Amino acid sequence: MNYTFSERMKNMNGTATREIFKLLGDPSIISFAGGNPAIECLPTERVKEIANDICASPDFPRVLQYGLTAGFPEFRELLCKYVETAGIYGAKTENVLVISGGQQGIDLALKAFIDPGDVILVEDPTYLAFLQLANSYEGVCVGVKADENGLDLADLEAKIKKHKPKVLYCVPTFSNPTGKTYSAENRKAIAEMTAKYGVIVLEDDPYSKLRFKGEYLPAMKSYDEAGNIIFISSFSKIISPGNRTGVAVASPEIIRKMEIGKQGTDLHTPNLSQMITYEYLRRGYLEPDLEKAVKIYGEKKAAMSAAIAKYMPEEFECTDPDGGLFIWGRFPEKIDVVKIFPEAIARKVAYIQGCVFFADGSGTNYVRLNYSYASPAQIDEGIARLGELFKEKLAK
Amino acid sequence: MNYTFSERMKNMNGTATREIFKLLGDPSIISFAGGNPAIECLPTERVKEIANDICASPDFPRVLQYGLTAGFPEFRELLCKYVETAGIYGAKTENVLVISGGQQGIDLALKAFIDPGDVILVEDPTYLAFLQLANSYEGVCVGVKADENGLDLADLEAKIKKHKPKVLYCVPTFSNPTGKTYSAENRKAIAEMTAKYGVIVLEDDPYSKLRFKGEYLPAMKSYDEAGNIIFISSFSKIISPGNRTGVAVASPEIIRKMEIGKQGTDLHTPNLSQMITYEYLRRGYLEPDLEKAVKIYGEKKAAMSAAIAKYMPEEFECTDPDGGLFIWGRFPEKIDVVKIFPEAIARKVAYIQGCVFFADGSGTNYVRLNYSYASPAQIDEGIARLGELFKEKLAK
Repeated sequence: MNYTFSERMKNMNGTATREIFKLLGDPSIISFAGGNPAIECLPTERVKEIANDICASPDFPRVLQYGLTAGFPEFRELLCKYVETAGIYGAKTENVLVISGGQQGIDLALKAFIDPGDVILVEDPTYLAFLQLANSYEGVCVGVKADENGLDLADLEAKIKKHKPKVLYCVPTFSNPTGKTYSAENRKAIAEMTAKYGVIVLEDDPYSKLRFKGEYLPAMKSYDEAGNIIFISSFSKIISPGNRTGVAVASPEIIRKMEIGKQGTDLHTPNLSQMITYEYLRRGYLEPDLEKAVKIYGEKKAAMSAAIAKYMPEEFECTDPDGGLFIWGRFPEKIDVVKIFPEAIARKVAYIQGCVFFADGSGTNYVRLNYSYASPAQIDEGIARLGELFKEKLAK
Repeated sequence: MNYTFSERMKNMNGTATREIFKLLGDPSIISFAGGNPAIECLPTERVKEIANDICASPDFPRVLQYGLTAGFPEFRELLCKYVETAGIYGAKTENVLVISGGQQGIDLALKAFIDPGDVILVEDPTYLAFLQLANSYEGVCVGVKADENGLDLADLEAKIKKHKPKVLYCVPTFSNPTGKTYSAENRKAIAEMTAKYGVIVLEDDPYSKLRFKGEYLPAMKSYDEAGNIIFISSFSKIISPGNRTGVAVASPEIIRKMEIGKQGTDLHTPNLSQMITYEYLRRGYLEPDLEKAVKIYGEKKAAMSAAIAKYMPEEFECTDPDGGLFIWGRFPEKIDVVKIFPEAIARKVAYIQGCVFFADGSGTNYVRLNYSYASPAQIDEGIARLGELFKEKLAK
């Protein structure tokens, strides 16, 4: 039978992301392609302890039964306090929704707001899975210029006036893929400008807790006076990606729509996943564990920066992030990293081609390099292989 | 700020379903409104044992890391065998997708096929959350007549010809809300007719394992020769709803689209949820546990049938299901169960108004009564309260 798939899905093939996971399945390849946290940073012993305690609790049958779509009431209460660590004060339970990972928060926000043809502004470049997701809602992504301080405000205002976007999507802290962080002034200015023009902001914050250098900045949501900002935070990078939990913070009206959307898609986040994250936070494990994890990420990032300095061609320029999981690099324009990719795989090393992060598919001379997953020794070896490959290409 | 929500969401308020959960939160109300499995039928000790074993396994860190969107490979392998219990033979891993509960399978199937305005045929009446979900994809539901043997084939063919539907949605075994089961001949005929006209069938099968009487029937999917049937099964009613796991079976092409859709919504089902269901099936716990559970459901159903005979007005007609979770009943047309609902709540007993299950919102003289959650004593007391209330109304 020939299938007539929906407009939203007929051209979706999801290749880029699935490729990442496939590569990680081959242990002989050193992969800088994924966004996985370091296995040694995952709180294995803590989660075991918590899971065993949950099983031993007289309340355990409740864990097996249906739960509320918005999440366990006590978890939502705790999340109201938790988001204060992002500078968001005064949240009530009606402002928070438990989500099955940050990805679901983005999905539910788009479901609530985007009709086919609606314009979504994004930082150029931006999170590749966001572009795919926006595509699945038949939204039209338009890139906004950015510099070292964040979004270019003049370009943002011009594009708001020109395109009348419904939504602005951004990752203000340790952006994916660039690792860039918007300044406090830039955050405040974006919050004010989007409020003025009635644009919904989708603030995606999976990485801000992974800061190994520099000073902590409050979320853009902390400057939200109009109720136009949706803050999405994930526990994937700081507790466990496999547990699939996160939190969305927004006005009660938006949270209600997202909750209804969630009701239709997975009814609720699995109770055991919720309870594990809840207990982990309640027992105060996050802060001491983060301190150790961040030290490891800082060391890995240093290992990658050192390897780049040692092996990569001098024409290669890259970022020097204060946190997060990625280094973003640029080759001269004659280099096409998409064409070269199969050769990298043949040499048992993987990166992500920069073009998948651009709304218009440009940027074939950029790469995103993840430093969180590989060991420092693998980082050295993998960057050496890449350096050799790209030096050959540049010499041609 | 005034929000401009998307077309799909602006009129969604999700009241009916959320009301169910709220009622269950009030312990003084005897609720026949939900679809929760009996707490005493949930395999609490088995899940504890499994969770403890998973925690003790050297493989545990893998549980915390990201997983594949389609599910753990060994779980998918096992699911290929598992669906043989539904009469589906020859499934390969490319035919199966792990889903976060049956609801997600339905959502992903609609995401893959439904554009705004597309017609979806449904049995009239049908699962209320399906109608809401179809609404969220801006699909147009059209009801098909049904009798004791299943769908009315003449009406089905006439409606296929008239509406050119993309999808037929049905619950062939212990249908929600009616508890009805389609005969083997009816299943086969529907499979053949939909194949002939190129209609995708979404076969939702959450209840077939909960049979306390009569003979087991193979899934409609077992008659699928054209590759047009998507079989969705859930572990919510037989292992744990709070664990949110299920399986979709379809052609590789459809499974790929659903997998890509899932990638965008929750990336993957939580690993611990998957591992618990996997181990539960692998250890052979399902069959002996089901035997006990089904006995309890049979007793509860008998308690409700007896209470109905004892207390309900003689004008009340209802089904006598061989399995599943619901009795479906009809009052004379002068009775409006929507108007009477607040009085039932005042008397501390809840049901679901039948009209929420009809594509056109008719059926205000029908009720769905769940017998799985309340105890036999509560069933007796709750039906006595309802009987008194409706006798008063009929006497007016």
